[in-house]
Amino acid sequence: MTIPVLEIFGPTIQGEGMVIGQKTMFVRTAGCDYSCSWCDSKFTWDGSEKNNIQKMNAQEILDALIEEGGDHFGHVTISGGNPGLLPQLDSLVDLLHTHSVKIALETQGSRWQPWFTKIDELTVSPKPPSSGMQTDFAKLDQIIESLSLEQKGTFSLKVVIFNDEDLDYARSVHKRYPAVELFLQVGNDDLETADQAELLAYLIERYERLIDQVMTDKELNHVRILPQLHTYLWGNRRGV
Amino acid sequence: MTIPVLEIFGPTIQGEGMVIGQKTMFVRTAGCDYSCSWCDSKFTWDGSEKNNIQKMNAQEILDALIEEGGDHFGHVTISGGNPGLLPQLDSLVDLLHTHSVKIALETQGSRWQPWFTKIDELTVSPKPPSSGMQTDFAKLDQIIESLSLEQKGTFSLKVVIFNDEDLDYARSVHKRYPAVELFLQVGNDDLETADQAELLAYLIERYERLIDQVMTDKELNHVRILPQLHTYLWGNRRGV
Repeated sequence: MTIPVLEIFGPTIQGEGMVIGQKTMFVRTAGCDYSCSWCDSKFTWDGSEKNNIQKMNAQEILDALIEEGGDHFGHVTISGGNPGLLPQLDSLVDLLHTHSVKIALETQGSRWQPWFTKIDELTVSPKPPSSGMQTDFAKLDQIIESLSLEQKGTFSLKVVIFNDEDLDYARSVHKRYPAVELFLQVGNDDLETADQAELLAYLIERYERLIDQVMTDKELNHVRILPQLHTYLWGNRRGV
Repeated sequence: MTIPVLEIFGPTIQGEGMVIGQKTMFVRTAGCDYSCSWCDSKFTWDGSEKNNIQKMNAQEILDALIEEGGDHFGHVTISGGNPGLLPQLDSLVDLLHTHSVKIALETQGSRWQPWFTKIDELTVSPKPPSSGMQTDFAKLDQIIESLSLEQKGTFSLKVVIFNDEDLDYARSVHKRYPAVELFLQVGNDDLETADQAELLAYLIERYERLIDQVMTDKELNHVRILPQLHTYLWGNRRGV
């Protein structure tokens, strides 16, 4: 079974979450069971790039990574879409590990895959109300429980925050899984602008506002609050 | 034995290193065995604020933390100066832990303290050539070895990069301690400006330049590269 791939690029830095700043390659898979209103990678599921999807096996993906990154990478981030839809990623995870490459992966936690337990840094990112999506908490409970019992690497939760309702949602997620490290990420609701200075000022203002809210909230004493660093560097550009 | 304290503030976010983004309080101790050319906290050792040093015991520091942070904190960062000079911090570490408060601490790794092993997130930050300081690698070897054997929490290395010589130094540190996670941090050599937009553009340009250098370097495949996020938010202001 091949893997549907839309982008392979890097090395660059991971801009988000638990391994923020990590030097990494990216593999972006096509297809998602969600359609978040503010998704910054809609092209992975809205059909606009379906002719660009490459069906690749694990070895072909590794070859493409080496073609892009040469010998100057040791870490790969698998992103989507929702790579958690793809049982066949198991083969890529094993192949990368046999080459001593570490793997980070992000999924919304709507589907379980047994290979999740082999990911070195797994981010489970359930989507808050502003996305327009509904979290299946029974499913998420199962996933968090399985990871808590079996995960060989590390894992964390990440919630993107656009408004107060999203922050309420993050609070309830934190209460439900208090033992799991939680990252709050400032949402970027300006995916169109090409004016980098303006975007930057706007994003930093939003970041500061989120920090202010969390600082006085005793239910959120143990969280980490992060921006998307790549947007600070490269705005809304793709492939960086 | 009391602890010499110059600042207690927060909650705010940790702007650097392994727990970047963490909601935390800060305790800044006075005194340093180094005098780095680009130190952003020279007031901790240059004598300019020696009249502001408060000699506090652990309970007084906890009381001051609670006065500042109320019930809305669960994490404290101890910074300096070099808090690694102070054997008496042992009492503060224990007291905070009995109150279920987690502790991060940063030191340059010039002195060992037995209580290092109790720190939840310890950053060892040896100083590169641009600082004007000399690393005692025999001492650093001992510290890294002791931490590798005994540390209960996590620890990492961090090197601040101002120029190519500093990057060479970071490379040699990484080669010497390959099993320890290494963070590269963009140096801020403009500690004076109050023009936040100008500072931000400058810091991001420097960050991008460092990323570019590391991306093509096969000896630095496993590092993480981070800015000082608090300077993006608050420039060179103190107490935030």
